[in-house]
Amino acid sequence: MNLTLTALPGLPEIKAGDDLAVLIQDGLVKADIQLQRGDVLGLAQKVVSKAEGRLVDLSTVLPSREALALAIEVEKDPRIVELILQESREIVRKRPGLLLVEHRLGFICANAGIDQSNVKGSTDWALLLPLDPDGSAERIRTKLENASGTQIGVLVIDSHGRAWRNGTVGVTIGLSGLPGVVDLRGRADRQGYTLKATDVGAADELAAAASLLMGQAAEGTPVVHARGFPYRLREAALDELLRPKDQDLFR
Amino acid sequence: MNLTLTALPGLPEIKAGDDLAVLIQDGLVKADIQLQRGDVLGLAQKVVSKAEGRLVDLSTVLPSREALALAIEVEKDPRIVELILQESREIVRKRPGLLLVEHRLGFICANAGIDQSNVKGSTDWALLLPLDPDGSAERIRTKLENASGTQIGVLVIDSHGRAWRNGTVGVTIGLSGLPGVVDLRGRADRQGYTLKATDVGAADELAAAASLLMGQAAEGTPVVHARGFPYRLREAALDELLRPKDQDLFR
Repeated sequence: MNLTLTALPGLPEIKAGDDLAVLIQDGLVKADIQLQRGDVLGLAQKVVSKAEGRLVDLSTVLPSREALALAIEVEKDPRIVELILQESREIVRKRPGLLLVEHRLGFICANAGIDQSNVKGSTDWALLLPLDPDGSAERIRTKLENASGTQIGVLVIDSHGRAWRNGTVGVTIGLSGLPGVVDLRGRADRQGYTLKATDVGAADELAAAASLLMGQAAEGTPVVHARGFPYRLREAALDELLRPKDQDLFR
Repeated sequence: MNLTLTALPGLPEIKAGDDLAVLIQDGLVKADIQLQRGDVLGLAQKVVSKAEGRLVDLSTVLPSREALALAIEVEKDPRIVELILQESREIVRKRPGLLLVEHRLGFICANAGIDQSNVKGSTDWALLLPLDPDGSAERIRTKLENASGTQIGVLVIDSHGRAWRNGTVGVTIGLSGLPGVVDLRGRADRQGYTLKATDVGAADELAAAASLLMGQAAEGTPVVHARGFPYRLREAALDELLRPKDQDLFR
């Protein structure tokens, strides 16, 4: 049983309006990969956001009074704090340098997942997460399925910090065509042990794997092709990976 | 850039005293894999624990008064609760069916990572985590490095639930020869965005990837070979993956 991940070479700098599906197809050709049934493509959030025009010129952001006060408290740029508040439902924890929020998309993450450019002497920009990453994944999947004639899955991936453990890991922030969580309840191994892991976060395990290959190189490799995902593809949405607040012991 | 994971075939049922390194070498031969510099082997905790004789016959466990009271509160077998308490430093959260603890090894996990057999009509057993998974990883690594003459890494992997998200994911509970966390601070992409992920939990990303291939089949495939881990191998210990309690916002 094999799982093979390949970082696609040669993606150009992504601009608003670019058709990612076309660029991915070019990358697959360069990597000499023909899509097969069950393949999954993992996309770094950053390229999806850029293609969808989610860059914000910080000079256009007018911080609210709430953002100004909070910015002092957490020692962050008030314009970034304003954007974080706009992108969030709730602040979960805060400390200098960090606003941990429930994002409007439903997951808990640092600073609403907003990336900041800091090129000296140029305009300051912030990059927001896609408006609807499940929708982004579905649109790209549909184009790639139509072009290839085969059933695949698509993940939109970001890196999140975690409670209790150091180091960020790749997680799913949007998906189409593959299960987020797989129910293994009732299976037992041959010695009769029940499986501890009854609900496996399969899409997040694949997101972590793909994330290993993203962004290590200077140029970055934001699209990763995976072959050998061991679970059956099906329709899904991010919600199945998110624990409802009232069932969460850490909110 | 590629990452290829292969679940090794044909591992026999593991018994106390088995030499896992020898069994892994047999599995590598069957999979036609020769170890290369930089390869990593991921081992399911369960086989390491069994080889190290960490099975406990529950009829030999005498619950303390504390365990008896707690067992009623969380609706669990008092003998299992006794073992959980023995294996833990502290209870972090509890609710019926769940004791979330700081394990004596330092990480937060459900029910102290204890597996339970439930074969009808046979003795009840519990399987504890290895005494020292870093040490287990190092011993197996040394044997495999000596036999192959090449530098590798070894991970001991368990499945953990997470705050905020549904589904378990594979995480590292012991490692030798590869970094737990990789520091990417100061790197920027070509558009000048600083990397959000400054400390990458590289070993946990690989553990999640390997976990995808473990235990899906009826027979289970508890050893996964990985080629293409994109970071330089080095000495490491589990501690680097564990956030100190006083820096943790979710304790």
